[in-house]
Order: sequence, then structure tokens, then C-alpha cells
Amino acid sequence: MSRAFNFCAGPATLPEAVLKQAQDEMLDWRGSGMSVMEMSHRSEAFIEIAETAEQDLRELAGISDDYAVLFMQGGASSQFSAIPLNLLGDRTGADYINTGIWSKKAIAEAARYADVNVAASSSDQGFSTVPDPSTWNTRADAAYLHYTPNETIGGVEYDFIPECGDVPLVADLSSTILSRPLDVSRFGLIYAGAQKNIGPSGLVVIIVRKDLLGKARPETPTMLNYQVIADNGSMYNTPATYSWYLAGLVFKWLKEQGGVAAMGELNERKARKLYDFIDANEFYANPVDPRYRSWMNVPFTLADEALNADFLKGADERGLLNLKGHRSVGGMRASLYNAMPEAGVDALIDYMASFARERG
Amino acid sequence: MSRAFNFCAGPATLPEAVLKQAQDEMLDWRGSGMSVMEMSHRSEAFIEIAETAEQDLRELAGISDDYAVLFMQGGASSQFSAIPLNLLGDRTGADYINTGIWSKKAIAEAARYADVNVAASSSDQGFSTVPDPSTWNTRADAAYLHYTPNETIGGVEYDFIPECGDVPLVADLSSTILSRPLDVSRFGLIYAGAQKNIGPSGLVVIIVRKDLLGKARPETPTMLNYQVIADNGSMYNTPATYSWYLAGLVFKWLKEQGGVAAMGELNERKARKLYDFIDANEFYANPVDPRYRSWMNVPFTLADEALNADFLKGADERGLLNLKGHRSVGGMRASLYNAMPEAGVDALIDYMASFARERG
Repeated sequence: MSRAFNFCAGPATLPEAVLKQAQDEMLDWRGSGMSVMEMSHRSEAFIEIAETAEQDLRELAGISDDYAVLFMQGGASSQFSAIPLNLLGDRTGADYINTGIWSKKAIAEAARYADVNVAASSSDQGFSTVPDPSTWNTRADAAYLHYTPNETIGGVEYDFIPECGDVPLVADLSSTILSRPLDVSRFGLIYAGAQKNIGPSGLVVIIVRKDLLGKARPETPTMLNYQVIADNGSMYNTPATYSWYLAGLVFKWLKEQGGVAAMGELNERKARKLYDFIDANEFYANPVDPRYRSWMNVPFTLADEALNADFLKGADERGLLNLKGHRSVGGMRASLYNAMPEAGVDALIDYMASFARERG
Repeated sequence: MSRAFNFCAGPATLPEAVLKQAQDEMLDWRGSGMSVMEMSHRSEAFIEIAETAEQDLRELAGISDDYAVLFMQGGASSQFSAIPLNLLGDRTGADYINTGIWSKKAIAEAARYADVNVAASSSDQGFSTVPDPSTWNTRADAAYLHYTPNETIGGVEYDFIPECGDVPLVADLSSTILSRPLDVSRFGLIYAGAQKNIGPSGLVVIIVRKDLLGKARPETPTMLNYQVIADNGSMYNTPATYSWYLAGLVFKWLKEQGGVAAMGELNERKARKLYDFIDANEFYANPVDPRYRSWMNVPFTLADEALNADFLKGADERGLLNLKGHRSVGGMRASLYNAMPEAGVDALIDYMASFARERG
């Protein structure tokens, strides 16, 4: 098969240009005689790769010097523990908003360390919307307020940044980072597993306001202590060098595409096309409150569930891969991250239309 | 430059055949239409990659079903915390042997969680040897005994496996795993950062006796809980999929080379050649007790330190890279992991001989 359109929620499709460059450089990075994955992380060459990646990310996302940028390992799931361990300080309470499966995972892990207050939940709405902020039961003395700007499984995305006064705002941006413009200065901490919009799995990026560092609890494993990682330029130990390099290639590619403003326009257009098609076709449905439909992850169902397997088989045959929904919700899901070209969405819609005509 | 001989201590040189296969498969893994790094970790294709890697590792290292094999993130440094958090159980004490910088790091982190007893140390010998086991002050009620079979920086390697009765033996095998035959059944837990003899950084392999699972302390971050990782086949969260795949390619390559028995012969021959040359040439010296000289990391000094920079410059020009010793000890260091061909050692010795003739 030539390159397929891969709608996987993560690990996810990467820009073909990035993979080609990585392929070209695999055995010999720019005349160095070695692959990037064979380089000492303390070599001049790798440090330039690492620093350039950080600078490009800062430029793309508009990250000021008030923030440290950390390249860590262990995915967003490790951050579910690291966040309370690092940010509680002398407080005990943390507020969380529950909008679905990833919120719930973050809450469950935080509750092992903190007095967690679920300030709002869309559980009663089947996690198909974002709770009205006027109803949020937040606490002024919480160590932080955590939310999940995009629920990868449910396909629910906030169209606003919560207001929380002096309480630091913490966001799991794994599936939506760099997909549209975002005012980073509104956040205390942003974290994002790389395997959706940044690069391969095995890397997690943390953007943390520097005044929040230095408060780690005594039991915090050193490798999860933000202050230590920041003080060592994310090289307290050997970082995930090859993943960091690939992230840097993705950042360069994003800049060439016009940055997050251009990405935001493209992603909105891609998502709108697909939602408009779904809404106009009786054979397909998306359960999410239209205001909060995700640009990144579009779950949809077929009018006849018995046809799911046939739908997936036909899609596979056309090189439209990984459309099966998450096992916890069923149905279908198309993830439309930055690296999914508009042609992939067009091909998907064409297929969905013909499938509905023939089998619907 | 064509492929150089890269003597870096880690991240380290990888087999050229492995890099070529990864290069070939970068954009399209076996007709799948995608790179391995774009695959869902829950896809059939990736699960086969992951399970094959584990099976090959079990076969290579002789790991029985009494042991779980975990593919985690965060490097050996994360394990410095994970080990006491998981293995202390209802005990408080852990014994450690101190043979150098990596031992000391493991000890410092463990001391944050455990009553650490340094049962023996070669500090008084400048970490140039292994303390005589008859002098070790171990405790029968320790939760485990930890040692560092190969000190990457000091170039000191045990030529025996410590006896410790019913106390589980724990070893940081980062720089020596799969480099020679080893009786895994003697160990309670083995851990190894991948970036020396296994693959790229960002992956750490844990081999743990199953009866030691299930004792994690309450404060253990879930992502460091061996039981959770084992129960989920190392997919509690998204693993470092591409690193896992590359590790699998390295394991296949090792099997093709004849496995660890053949590697042991080759590595002993490579190391012996270099040590014999150093011992026979007055211009070079290695400070380590001959019995405990590492097969993997060969530190050496020049008779005139003022020539260090010239030595390194000339080496670079010949494609003999990363020979500079660790910043904490100075001098030179040649790392001779599995993927360093004998021709690399020959080329290094040729260069060292000519440098000594001309400048010594």
C-alpha cells in the first residue's frame, strides 16, 4: 500500500514530509556519521536539535519566558500524578472538571494525593457537552483547577478558556495542542502527550509557569519533579532523544504550513466539512452538543450498528484506516489532527456517502 | 561522512542493519500504509511487534515464565524511585553496594524512601574495583540488595553475581544487558535503560520475578506501579511504541548474530584487544583492577593530559567519535557495546598506536 489516510486517535498520522526527512537522516544525520538516535544527548549536535525544537515550539504556541518548557517521558498519564505532586504545595485541595474518560483518569490519579473536588461534570449529559461555567463549584483556595480541553474519546472540545482568578489553570492539551491559536498566558500548566499533534509516543511536553515550580512534595520521584527537570534543561537523565528530534521536525513543518493560525483555519474547515456531512445524512449521527464538537476527534455512529464491520472493512480497502471508535463507546471515530490532510477528510466523506447510498 | 565508529556511552551506536530496516520501513511498515510510529498501540500489527520483541528478549536472555517483562518509559533513573516504591513492601530497609556514580545515584534516590544500608563501597579505592563480597555488611531482613553490575562511567564490571540468600537481588543492567550470558533466575529484578545495548533512549526494560509484584506503596504513581504495568501488558497508557519496535529489531539482529553467547565471545575479544594494547603501551593507562575491567566501557588516560584535545581531534577526523571521557572523570572512554563491530576496535587501536608514536 502507498501511504494511507490514518484516522487513528493516537499514536497518529505524522506529516509525510517529516517522515521522509527522518528516513533520509536515519543512518547519517547531516554528515555526522550517525543517526540522531545514536547521539549523546549532551553532544553539541543534539543540544542544538533540542534547543531549536523548544524555540520553535515557543514561537508556534506563543510561550513567554515566564514559562518553562519541559520534554519529559511517560505520557500524559504520568502527569496525572506529577501535577498534584508538584502543584499542591502546602494546600490539599484541587478542583477538576469532568467531561469524560480522560478527565476521569486524571481525577482518579489526583485523588490518590489530593482532596479532589469535581467542580462540574457532564456525566448526566452522557459527556456530550461542557458544563455551563456559571454552575461550576470551584474553590478559591484550590491549588489549581484542572480540565481537559478536548476529550479524545468523547469528541468534546471547549470553545473557551475557563476563568479561575488567581487559581492556576491546568490543562491536558494532549489532543489539541498546536491545532489552533491559544492564549498560553491564561494557563498555569499545560501538558500534552506527543503522539497526536507533536510526534511519536514516548514524549510529553509540559509548559509550566515558572512561579509554580519548586513546590514538589517530599515523596515526588525525582524524575517527576518539574523543578529538577527544568533546572537540567530536561536532561536530568537521558531524554527520549529521537522523539524530541521528531517533535522538532513536526514543529518546523508546522511553521512552514503557517503556524497555528493556519492550522486552526484548516482544522476548522476539515471538521466543519465532516460534521456538515454527518448532520445532512440521516445514516450518520454525532451525539455531541454542536457548540462543543471537537475539531480533532469526530465520533459518529451508523444508523444500523450491524453494518459497522462492513463499514470498517470497506474503509480499510480504500486506505481509510483506524476509524473504529474507542472500545468504551463503540461506533466510529475519525481523528483529524494537524497531519491529516484535507484530502483525507474529502476521501472519508466520499466513502461515507457511497456507503450510505449503497447500504443505508 | 559515511557511518562512523561511534564510541558514545549512550545513547550509543546501533547495528547498521537495524537502522537500514527502520529506514526502509519508515513510511510504510510492510504494506500497512503507515509508519510504526503512526500505529495504534492496540492495533493487531503493533501488538504483534510488541509481543515478538518480548518473546525474542525472553529467548535471548533466558527469561522464564516466573518473570514479567515490562517495557516502560523514563529510563533507569525513574527506576531508582520505582524500585523502593514497589519492592519495600512492609519492610523499611534496602541494601546497596556502591561501586561508582550510578550506584550513588540509585542510593541517593532510594534513601528518599527507604532505610538504605550501603553494605559495601569501593569509594576508598577510587571506585576502581568491586568490594570483596566477604566484607559486605548485608542484612538478612533487607527488602532487596541492589548493585550495579557495570559502572558505565568508571568502567568497572562485576565478574560474578552476588549471593544474597532469600533477599531479592536487584541489578541495574543498563550498560551490560545482553552483552554476555547471564543467569536471570538469580535475580529478583533487572532493569535496563535501552540506549546502550537495546535501542534508542526513552525505553527501559524491567524483568521482575512475579512474586515480587503487588507490594507497591500507596504513594507510588500508578505509572510506576509494576503490578499495573504488568497487568496491562505494558500498555496501561500509550507506550513508547517506536522505541519498542526498534528494540525488537535489535533483538532479532542479536539472534542472527548467535545470541548472547556469541556476543559474549565477541565482546570479550574486543575488550581484551583494547586492554592488552593499553597495558602494553606506556602512553596509555586504565586505572581499573584488571579482574573487574568492563567489557562495555573502557576508560583510559593519556600520559600527557595536555594532548587530550589533539587526541580527540585526530580521532574525530578518522571517524572515531565520542571518545571523550565523562565530565566527572575526564580522560577518554571507549564504549564497546554489542553494536560496535570489532573493526571499530581495530581502527581505534591503530589510531591510538600511531598517536602515541607521533606525539607520545
